[in-house]
Amino acid sequence: MSTYEARLAALREQLRSDRLDGFVVPLTDEHMSEYVGSYAQRLAWLTGFKGSAGSAVVLPEEAAIFVDGRYTLQVRDQVSAEQWSYQSVPETSVADWLQQHAPEGGRIGYDPWLHTRDWVKKARAALADKGAELVAVGRNPIDAVWSGQPDPSPALLIVQPDDLAGQSSASKRQAIADWLKGEKADAAVLSALDSIAWTFNIRGEDVSHTPVALSFALVHDDGTADLFVAPEKIGDDVRQHLGNGVRLHDRSAFEASLAGLGGKTVVVDPERAVAAIFEALDQAGARILSRRDPSVLPKAIKNEAEVAGHMAAQARDGSAMVRFLHWLSVEAPKGGVDELTASDQLLAFRKACGDLRDLSFDTISGAGPNGAIVHYKASEETNRPLEMNSLYLIDSGGQYPDGTTDITRTVAIGTPTAEMRQRYTLVLKGHIAVSRARFPAGTRGAQLDTFARQYLWQAGLDYAHGTGHGVGSYLSVHEGPQRIAPAGSGQAGGDEPLRAGMILSNEPGYYKPGAYGIRIENLVLVVPVEIPGAEKDVLGFEPLTWVPMDRSLIDLTLLTAEERAWVDDYHARVLEIIGPRVDGEALDWLRSACAPL
Amino acid sequence: MSTYEARLAALREQLRSDRLDGFVVPLTDEHMSEYVGSYAQRLAWLTGFKGSAGSAVVLPEEAAIFVDGRYTLQVRDQVSAEQWSYQSVPETSVADWLQQHAPEGGRIGYDPWLHTRDWVKKARAALADKGAELVAVGRNPIDAVWSGQPDPSPALLIVQPDDLAGQSSASKRQAIADWLKGEKADAAVLSALDSIAWTFNIRGEDVSHTPVALSFALVHDDGTADLFVAPEKIGDDVRQHLGNGVRLHDRSAFEASLAGLGGKTVVVDPERAVAAIFEALDQAGARILSRRDPSVLPKAIKNEAEVAGHMAAQARDGSAMVRFLHWLSVEAPKGGVDELTASDQLLAFRKACGDLRDLSFDTISGAGPNGAIVHYKASEETNRPLEMNSLYLIDSGGQYPDGTTDITRTVAIGTPTAEMRQRYTLVLKGHIAVSRARFPAGTRGAQLDTFARQYLWQAGLDYAHGTGHGVGSYLSVHEGPQRIAPAGSGQAGGDEPLRAGMILSNEPGYYKPGAYGIRIENLVLVVPVEIPGAEKDVLGFEPLTWVPMDRSLIDLTLLTAEERAWVDDYHARVLEIIGPRVDGEALDWLRSACAPL
Repeated sequence: MSTYEARLAALREQLRSDRLDGFVVPLTDEHMSEYVGSYAQRLAWLTGFKGSAGSAVVLPEEAAIFVDGRYTLQVRDQVSAEQWSYQSVPETSVADWLQQHAPEGGRIGYDPWLHTRDWVKKARAALADKGAELVAVGRNPIDAVWSGQPDPSPALLIVQPDDLAGQSSASKRQAIADWLKGEKADAAVLSALDSIAWTFNIRGEDVSHTPVALSFALVHDDGTADLFVAPEKIGDDVRQHLGNGVRLHDRSAFEASLAGLGGKTVVVDPERAVAAIFEALDQAGARILSRRDPSVLPKAIKNEAEVAGHMAAQARDGSAMVRFLHWLSVEAPKGGVDELTASDQLLAFRKACGDLRDLSFDTISGAGPNGAIVHYKASEETNRPLEMNSLYLIDSGGQYPDGTTDITRTVAIGTPTAEMRQRYTLVLKGHIAVSRARFPAGTRGAQLDTFARQYLWQAGLDYAHGTGHGVGSYLSVHEGPQRIAPAGSGQAGGDEPLRAGMILSNEPGYYKPGAYGIRIENLVLVVPVEIPGAEKDVLGFEPLTWVPMDRSLIDLTLLTAEERAWVDDYHARVLEIIGPRVDGEALDWLRSACAPL
Repeated sequence: MSTYEARLAALREQLRSDRLDGFVVPLTDEHMSEYVGSYAQRLAWLTGFKGSAGSAVVLPEEAAIFVDGRYTLQVRDQVSAEQWSYQSVPETSVADWLQQHAPEGGRIGYDPWLHTRDWVKKARAALADKGAELVAVGRNPIDAVWSGQPDPSPALLIVQPDDLAGQSSASKRQAIADWLKGEKADAAVLSALDSIAWTFNIRGEDVSHTPVALSFALVHDDGTADLFVAPEKIGDDVRQHLGNGVRLHDRSAFEASLAGLGGKTVVVDPERAVAAIFEALDQAGARILSRRDPSVLPKAIKNEAEVAGHMAAQARDGSAMVRFLHWLSVEAPKGGVDELTASDQLLAFRKACGDLRDLSFDTISGAGPNGAIVHYKASEETNRPLEMNSLYLIDSGGQYPDGTTDITRTVAIGTPTAEMRQRYTLVLKGHIAVSRARFPAGTRGAQLDTFARQYLWQAGLDYAHGTGHGVGSYLSVHEGPQRIAPAGSGQAGGDEPLRAGMILSNEPGYYKPGAYGIRIENLVLVVPVEIPGAEKDVLGFEPLTWVPMDRSLIDLTLLTAEERAWVDDYHARVLEIIGPRVDGEALDWLRSACAPL
């Protein structure tokens, strides 16, 4: 019996003793996090699936794993077809599948700390059609059978200094308190880890690539707060930083603390708080006010200190990228560079440029056809050399104390084909159209998405992902609420009005399966734009990322004069900002990379 | 006591005798129609409000009228502030207002034949907070006190011949029956008047500007149908046309017929069917399947005969517009033309060009500042002369047996200012961008809206309406499900994927309050586009409307070479299509209006 077969058998045995006829296994944690700590990697432990999104259902005789289109191939590689059936979301939801496969009158378990209340409502309704029941478990049955399950990370909290945060925690909490009074509410639950990190000006090391600490919080209408975090994670510096206004409790005391809120009006965010929080408040007799977590919007709208920090981080990160691209221009044509050595080298340059705390996500280093896999992660098995006359796509970012970066560049190794140059230039035109867009205050990201696609569309081409996501300040590299995505695509955030101070990625692409992938990504800052005679407040984007684009991939005949001027202006600013930070051959390379087209 | 004061008093008296503490008065009919017959103009009768959208609530001591931003000024002119408070939607919904103003524990009446089930649910929930109740009335209390309320129109039904419809009613009903079988349903309720007209290939004269007949229908899974329409409206031609497969009943028998559907699975469209239909089916013990009315999509996707009919109707309508614009070019500079004489003259040309059955909506004839009122309707009180060195906006359309038209042109009387020319050209550039768009199959109208606004945005300008609506085939001038509107604007239809054969308007604008309005509107047909090397099925738009755009308003320095070529090409085709239909001075005028820029 293989490892995963044995684990599945052990889980089924546990379900029998728990009197359950099934169990749902999502990939998230008690904070609805996108990236989770190793203790919460239950889906990977059970199935072997290593992707970043998915879920599973285990029944006595059947088991199914649910992944989206990004992972259709990967799930077949990593998860055994003998034990598991593969299901595609959104075509088949867990609720749909349960409706079809759950035993009539059965009891299907779920962990109320790992699902939203909306999910529970839908799944419960789907099961009701079969007379089956959705049952909240007291203890996750996987934890019961996972021997060697890691403990939650014991890493110490880190103070995010006020000069980088640009606003003290007391001031942020007072703003939340003022808002609570307006809502006639007594307290707000903060359960999203980045919301807590932002509100308290703390960071952590509990989740890979996202500098947050496992915690919950309650912010009250007097500006004080309760912070629930394992006591061994709090040093004197953090204790002093938090001050008297923040009462510290063990993270395990959070649920009991909710039970003490009877009679209070409590704000909970139904998109960010798990079902167990709602249930605890309901049982306590609290009045629940479903509102967006009040830290979400101020966190997204960067203040002056955060913008300045971002710019400083981008200069460091850009100089690492420039050294890397120069290195690549020398080494790749010689042969011997592959996806893993390339991403290792970039990491080394990032470290050398200083202040790197972590990567902001797993680097996507895709040579040739691997570049066409949007969420590719190179491994020893898939590693490809960077071959002559091919494209290489590198999407990566760093976590710095003053900012989070995310950049994609596509470079030609050797001589690109005319088709590669045409496609790259169409993607570039879309990138420029977004970057040059002007739009009235109140415009939503979904209204801008088409700017990025229009030139590909004219050639009958497109790309199957959104155009831009929000980015945190030394926080999540994917941060809401804003997004640039196609209208009607169902991607959360496209309907959020853009506001000056928000940061987004601008990353159109083109992917030719089995051949090559192209993506061009800068981070951009939403800024007010002065236009003489304007009847509206107008916004636009300023680039934050300063790294040259591969001129050998630009087909000048496809650019308008304005687009060409944009590239030349962008490159002049790259040289101005990054030039002083590199020297020798790298500087020579940068100068020629940034010369007017 | 004024007329309207007396009517309000009479209604309150009636409410007292009906033991109601309030009543909600929408502006619609039993079919959720946009335009309604005179018998259903209860809001206008009660309040004096003549706009096309609004609602009212009457309580014992208070009364409120709810209109959107288009009617903020008009409602103050037409409705007395002594009896009524003015409320703005969507800022304040009827449900919100009721929640605040309804007496605690009160009984608020509504006519279940004039509201959707969703509206009822929301209003009921809002009232529940006050312990108040929403009560369905058996007879509309306005009808009880409206002496002289018109009877529903007795007009005869008209056969829409198969050669214009392009598909027989039997074939359409069979397609619905096949779909019902796939849904495991027994029957579909059709309650939208245009759905019934399309499905049965009939037309009517019961609603101004929309050639439909007051009726309900049930289509069964064997392709037969029950049609509920006043028997005196059916002549022998219609009876023969409908054939044995359609059982005829009086319209008043519809509710009783629903009561006979116990045990059946019945498709009902929650956006198009009123609450009373759901309630009747619920009480009967039918299983309700909430699905979109199955005629909606095939009605929107025009077949070859319908497209050919549209083109023929557009050629007639275009020749009337061209004669009108020529007449205007001669008469307006002499003085003596005003908004009403101009629209009368256009109507005369439309009649003279043949086959006109009706206008497709009230003509918007706006001189100078009246052009800035998006839904302006000229009256004796507001009528303005067309003055020299001003703009004149005319938005109008005709109902022809082979198609429905809708066109807006903005023309300069005398010499326009540089600002007028700049703004007109920015609107034109947006119109051209939509017209030239190429997009993959599956793209939604909301994804294209920004094309129309982008040049205005660059100048800090915008317009506060959608860019395009669907249009029927000798049916509603506003026909769903498709629409081009900003993402997130809440306008229904923006998320509907566009399909080849759909017809939409393309009508960006610019409005300077108190000064002038600009709008350029063509109808366009969604067509497949062949692109060498395309990886997707690609769609684009073909103009259906052929009338010159005012060259004196085009600032050539703002057009790209491609845009200029588009205008020249468009004008060449206008001359080709309309030229043979006009002669003499009008032809001379058309030739110079269509000469290359």
